[in-house]
Amino acid sequence: MHGLMMNQPLLISSQLEFAARFHAKVEVVTRTVEGPIVRTTWRGVADRVRQLANALVKAGIRPGDVVATLGWNTQRHLELYFAVSGLGAILHTLNPRLPPDQLAYIVNDAGDVMLCFDTTFAPLARHLASVSTPIKQYVALTDEAHLPKDTGITSLKAYESLLPGEATTFAWPSFDENTASSLCYTSGTVGMPKGVLYSHRSTVLHSYAICMVDALAISAQDVTLPVVPMFHVNAWGVPYAAAMVGSKLVLPGPALDGVSLLELIQNEQVTSALGVPTVWLSLLAAAKTQGVKMSTLSKVTIGGSACPPSMISAFQEEHGARVLHAWGMTELSPLGTACVLLPQHRDLSRAEQVQVQLKQGRPIFGIDLRLVDDDGKVVPHDGKTSGHLQAKGGWVASAYFHSDDVSHHDGDWFMTGDIATIDGDGYMQITDRSKDVIKSGGEWISSIDVEHAATLHPAIAQAAAVGVPHPRWLERPLLVVVKHKDQTVSKAELRAFLETKLVKWWLPDAIEFVEALPLGPTGKVLKRQLRERFKDYALP
Amino acid sequence: MHGLMMNQPLLISSQLEFAARFHAKVEVVTRTVEGPIVRTTWRGVADRVRQLANALVKAGIRPGDVVATLGWNTQRHLELYFAVSGLGAILHTLNPRLPPDQLAYIVNDAGDVMLCFDTTFAPLARHLASVSTPIKQYVALTDEAHLPKDTGITSLKAYESLLPGEATTFAWPSFDENTASSLCYTSGTVGMPKGVLYSHRSTVLHSYAICMVDALAISAQDVTLPVVPMFHVNAWGVPYAAAMVGSKLVLPGPALDGVSLLELIQNEQVTSALGVPTVWLSLLAAAKTQGVKMSTLSKVTIGGSACPPSMISAFQEEHGARVLHAWGMTELSPLGTACVLLPQHRDLSRAEQVQVQLKQGRPIFGIDLRLVDDDGKVVPHDGKTSGHLQAKGGWVASAYFHSDDVSHHDGDWFMTGDIATIDGDGYMQITDRSKDVIKSGGEWISSIDVEHAATLHPAIAQAAAVGVPHPRWLERPLLVVVKHKDQTVSKAELRAFLETKLVKWWLPDAIEFVEALPLGPTGKVLKRQLRERFKDYALP
Repeated sequence: MHGLMMNQPLLISSQLEFAARFHAKVEVVTRTVEGPIVRTTWRGVADRVRQLANALVKAGIRPGDVVATLGWNTQRHLELYFAVSGLGAILHTLNPRLPPDQLAYIVNDAGDVMLCFDTTFAPLARHLASVSTPIKQYVALTDEAHLPKDTGITSLKAYESLLPGEATTFAWPSFDENTASSLCYTSGTVGMPKGVLYSHRSTVLHSYAICMVDALAISAQDVTLPVVPMFHVNAWGVPYAAAMVGSKLVLPGPALDGVSLLELIQNEQVTSALGVPTVWLSLLAAAKTQGVKMSTLSKVTIGGSACPPSMISAFQEEHGARVLHAWGMTELSPLGTACVLLPQHRDLSRAEQVQVQLKQGRPIFGIDLRLVDDDGKVVPHDGKTSGHLQAKGGWVASAYFHSDDVSHHDGDWFMTGDIATIDGDGYMQITDRSKDVIKSGGEWISSIDVEHAATLHPAIAQAAAVGVPHPRWLERPLLVVVKHKDQTVSKAELRAFLETKLVKWWLPDAIEFVEALPLGPTGKVLKRQLRERFKDYALP
Repeated sequence: MHGLMMNQPLLISSQLEFAARFHAKVEVVTRTVEGPIVRTTWRGVADRVRQLANALVKAGIRPGDVVATLGWNTQRHLELYFAVSGLGAILHTLNPRLPPDQLAYIVNDAGDVMLCFDTTFAPLARHLASVSTPIKQYVALTDEAHLPKDTGITSLKAYESLLPGEATTFAWPSFDENTASSLCYTSGTVGMPKGVLYSHRSTVLHSYAICMVDALAISAQDVTLPVVPMFHVNAWGVPYAAAMVGSKLVLPGPALDGVSLLELIQNEQVTSALGVPTVWLSLLAAAKTQGVKMSTLSKVTIGGSACPPSMISAFQEEHGARVLHAWGMTELSPLGTACVLLPQHRDLSRAEQVQVQLKQGRPIFGIDLRLVDDDGKVVPHDGKTSGHLQAKGGWVASAYFHSDDVSHHDGDWFMTGDIATIDGDGYMQITDRSKDVIKSGGEWISSIDVEHAATLHPAIAQAAAVGVPHPRWLERPLLVVVKHKDQTVSKAELRAFLETKLVKWWLPDAIEFVEALPLGPTGKVLKRQLRERFKDYALP
């Protein structure tokens, strides 16, 4: 017997219309690609989204069509999020940091019929227009006055020319909530990127999840700054969630340097900011240089890669902003876990609390996690036994787009590729990527733990530990570090410091100072490049 | 095209298993009907729920069967919530405050095949066993030692005798998430009660909703005390939400008096409590008598009927606990709106903030609201124009159980029977029940506003304003009030006080002091009885 409840599909268009009805006056602020800060409200956004939807339909975009974007976090990109998915088409956010040939591959794999790009990325658009792709229409996310002149793209349209004259009403279609809404490719370190195809249902469920208190707690009480790019797993779902709850949204555009972000945080009284560790390094540096305390900031969500302990302390001690460490993946929409302290942690010292906060956190209802050993056998959640982390849930990928590769799934579980522990309170902690783990004499050394220990040294800005071949132990750790500007530390001093933090056999056999670590398109350290560079390294 | 996301039905059994896996050590504490406080954990609850599910299957309970309860808020009732719905049967919570003949009607209408009752309600069970019903099995929610002897029910079983020997594993079935999960009858003031049949989907979506920051914010960081009964709209969904997020749950059993609640709040360090205004009156009185400050309490959620301003001030000023005013209905699962302050209210004075908090609040995403006039025409959300409040959403009833009465629906909108305004920030405020509104000379007087004004007077504990016939104005307000013990105020003094709070034509034409107001089975004032009692009242 079915319940007698109203049958309403979970649709992204409902989030927008809800914002227009009940959060009409809440602001959406953008630092534009053109330069100025522009301000509107959720009602203003919704009016333009409906105009855009009318324009897209007029341009021939139909349900199921794939519309690509190359865009920063801006109001126009936000409008595309809701208009494209709302009308039943698929929003495909391209990562502009990928090499042009990979982008061309992705555009072809996805079957993109339209590309909307910020003028910053005109060279990339020009490249895509010069190779064979299914793209039939190009739209520059600007007005006529700022239309790039030298793209060689015939019939290039300015986004702002599409809207005038269009009605601010649009009858959003109702359809199966499992309909595809958006598409994001993972930047695989091996092979070509793979597409993850989200649905309206998965997106709305994920939105509910991230608004929960124990998750990212997106709220009407917050001024939310997603520094995490809208081309990177839908900015962790923040645009949808912000509409749903009526959070003021501050979009940083292309200016992701510390000084620009600091200015935006101070001027817009940002209370909640979200991003990967690398952007926070430059923000913290800018605040230190200017002697500024970010007094409105109450929460900083850090994900994308493991958060170093020094960063947690810096935000909490210097700025009074609680750090929320979160973990996710493109294949998880992305949120899997969030690290919120429990009542039992309240009486711990600050240092002990940071030790808890370093964990990736507890799963959010809707995501289930388990650990398996090399043979696929489930291992206990005892906080000590590590295993391959697997996930399942309503916002987890069941397959990749246009792919029959099932090697990432173990039955109905998705294999994350991470090595982790889960403790008795449900806290998951990643000790490594499967492929980054350092195997010394048959035992695993957690590269992340070695890196965290190194970044606890005040002179160290970034660290990466990689395994290099060793005649006896097969592999031993090499620590590659970047020093803070104007800071000095010798290898011997750093090694002595690490001896106080790590068990002896986890100590790196050697330390190398470098100017910078190689970063991938989503800001993660490319360990594969480091392993390649140091593969013939002569350990002492 | 469908998204490529895992297809997992939203099921209540998943909430329980999630709690068992990731919130295993979090406590569930009950003041039992037998007397003692008993403690277990979510893992302990889950083990017993699986034993219970095995026992229910052995007793012949099949998917689709309706299992009734007459129970207080206890661990055993909680176990029934998850076991019955989890195995695909329907949990039907009977309201023991209803008259026995109405209960018999409801049991027949629902088709209950089993009744599980707390020993407190043995007389009611005995009555049901003496009349014609489909109930085949009776279970007393106690152990053999406390089994009531004089029920006349043959083969009465003790709940605690069902579990031993049953496996603590149970393979929860997977099924369509729209399957009926639970059933609750509204205590209609006119006609017989009507059944609202919830589904797994509506229950899980509602659970997500109430865990959002801007809703009830149920969280792992809280010690949650649902004083709202589990026989009243599933205790506002708290049992499901608490499992989902891993909140410590404190269940007050039958002891709902102020002194018992106060003891529980202090001993268990309750941070979040939820209930109707009447229970808070006795709690606040107990705290005052004992000179106790409830220092752990940080949030009190008040719903069920409009919260008087004096109560908001008492919790906030005397106990430092924020009041969260919420609105819902049995037909809304129940949450419709929650009243959380926005950033724009932070700089208001306390008194001005209370004025905002008196509103029923803003809708939670998943619920849509609108106002219509007597002709069904939509009226604006300007905070001034009042209209008939209508709601729709994924956890709103589409029909009543075993009923083809469509008179409560206006197209795909549910007619709440409330008169309300909605302001530009989305705040809904109920000014009256449609049937309680006082129509003076063709204009509406809000009985709720008159009552709020009266309860602002320090001598007044409770107030009800009803319309009584008037030769010229057709109806004029009569104010019926209950004084605080040991407080005095004259009619003239109270009237002079009201003159400072209300516009002149809203002033009651007469005031009557009574010992108590007539309360319905869910603690609401029965205005119908008052109108009946005073229908021949001679206004001055």
